[in-house]
Amino acid sequence: MTSARGIALAVDLGGTKVEAALVTQDGHVLSDTRHRAPTGRTRSREGTARAVETVVTRALEAAPGVEVVGVGVGSAGPLSISTGTVSPLNLPAWRTYPLATLIRDITGLQPTVRLDGTCIVLAEHWVGALQNYRTALGMVVSTGVGGGLLVDGRIVRGRTGNAGHIGQIQLATRTSPGLDYSVTLEGIAAGPQIVTWARTQGWAGTSGEDLADAYKAGNAVAILAVQRCAKAIAEGISSVGALLDLEAVAIGGGFSKVSQDLFSFIRQNLGEIAPLSTMGDIRVVPSALSGDGPLIGAAGLVHRSDLIV
Amino acid sequence: MTSARGIALAVDLGGTKVEAALVTQDGHVLSDTRHRAPTGRTRSREGTARAVETVVTRALEAAPGVEVVGVGVGSAGPLSISTGTVSPLNLPAWRTYPLATLIRDITGLQPTVRLDGTCIVLAEHWVGALQNYRTALGMVVSTGVGGGLLVDGRIVRGRTGNAGHIGQIQLATRTSPGLDYSVTLEGIAAGPQIVTWARTQGWAGTSGEDLADAYKAGNAVAILAVQRCAKAIAEGISSVGALLDLEAVAIGGGFSKVSQDLFSFIRQNLGEIAPLSTMGDIRVVPSALSGDGPLIGAAGLVHRSDLIV
Repeated sequence: MTSARGIALAVDLGGTKVEAALVTQDGHVLSDTRHRAPTGRTRSREGTARAVETVVTRALEAAPGVEVVGVGVGSAGPLSISTGTVSPLNLPAWRTYPLATLIRDITGLQPTVRLDGTCIVLAEHWVGALQNYRTALGMVVSTGVGGGLLVDGRIVRGRTGNAGHIGQIQLATRTSPGLDYSVTLEGIAAGPQIVTWARTQGWAGTSGEDLADAYKAGNAVAILAVQRCAKAIAEGISSVGALLDLEAVAIGGGFSKVSQDLFSFIRQNLGEIAPLSTMGDIRVVPSALSGDGPLIGAAGLVHRSDLIV
Repeated sequence: MTSARGIALAVDLGGTKVEAALVTQDGHVLSDTRHRAPTGRTRSREGTARAVETVVTRALEAAPGVEVVGVGVGSAGPLSISTGTVSPLNLPAWRTYPLATLIRDITGLQPTVRLDGTCIVLAEHWVGALQNYRTALGMVVSTGVGGGLLVDGRIVRGRTGNAGHIGQIQLATRTSPGLDYSVTLEGIAAGPQIVTWARTQGWAGTSGEDLADAYKAGNAVAILAVQRCAKAIAEGISSVGALLDLEAVAIGGGFSKVSQDLFSFIRQNLGEIAPLSTMGDIRVVPSALSGDGPLIGAAGLVHRSDLIV
């Protein structure tokens, strides 16, 4: 299944964990090379650096003799591509941290560092649900809402490398007066927000998993909650679809699995609100990669460098 | 000022008029070659075609002996780039009209046809207010709100060629219940919408020009109306800025001239609502080309073909 040629080292740095693995030219994660370590809000600057070093070293040691042709790194944002520094919101000890330099010192190779949302849409376009599209949105609905963009056949970078923040666009579905977090897609549709909303409606559960079970059991509030999430996502897709003339949207992330019906609800809402005739057939599909997207996409920074700028 | 080499024929087709002119390699419109003819909702299919033929023929005849190196056409949307057909909303007799074929039959050259909003952002990037930026939004605030996008150094095309519809993104500033035109940027900030809103607040004027005069005279409702327009535009820029990691926005169109203060209000609102630290210094500036943008941009489809896909 794999060849000794063309192996990339992929690193995915997030707010709760860092992962590293070797990935083949066809986007296959070599599972025996995959290692993870916790990160988190309370880790020191050096502690997080050691976590990165640990998983990178173990991934490389798991396949001695393999020639690594390049290193791709996806990171929680914000970051700066031009300096190779990252300042992940949930890793407060890392502010303008020189992640590119750290990786280079460990591996001896200059890595390509991009936003995790960038890696996700790259992975979906390379080997996932967005193959054969040229203008598409990759989206994650989890504890937050994020994503990345493919426009006219290239992954969008933006000024600093932070393009793709679909969670921070505004929606008409406001939940409270005032112009704040409560009017953004993330502020309405992220898992914890939907759970909180359901509780204000009298539902007693406490997690996305609870909500999935309640939906399956036919609980009326759980149904409204999933529909609320779908409506907000559809509004966000509507705006991005009008702006970019999208072909397709792939949605992953833990909360996107709350029910398969989420996707029918999104499609139905989008059909009702799409403001342009050219938006009639935007395809909305589940991610084909799930939790592997970020790692595969980090490897894609190496194997599909033709897609990035 | 001009050379005989490198002249493009530029055509701008809109809902009220069609214009054609010859444009130099440095983006200078040869004014003695510029011709216009009315279009409009009541024109027949053939009548509009004759209007196009008239202005194109006159522009070419105005400079005999000049070698035209290419033809660029900007059109009101929607359109389809792949077929070269256009269906301008305000020209109901033209549905899926083969504009590329018409122009080729008149000129003997295969034209490049793109959305008018695409031409506007191309012109601003080429010789206007968006030079030296790589990720930016060109925006028109007039009887409608439209625009075009520059992303990572290229003008965005989208699936069918209809990318750039900033007027159709949703805002949190809803004016009435329900999810309809009243929640889009165009539905709130377009000139006629702001005039209508001011009248609901007791103001007696009937046009954008009236509103500009009233603002200058210190009329309280006119001031609120301009601020309302600015807030809606800032909300739109906020969403697009988060999504694309924008560097700059250039705004033109008749209603953008209602007052110079419009721009200070937009910047102030954007500073207050921008949801990401990376958005702190998005530049918001007036168009540097005004009414010449669409024609210059149509010529840019020829002279700066490196910017389009």
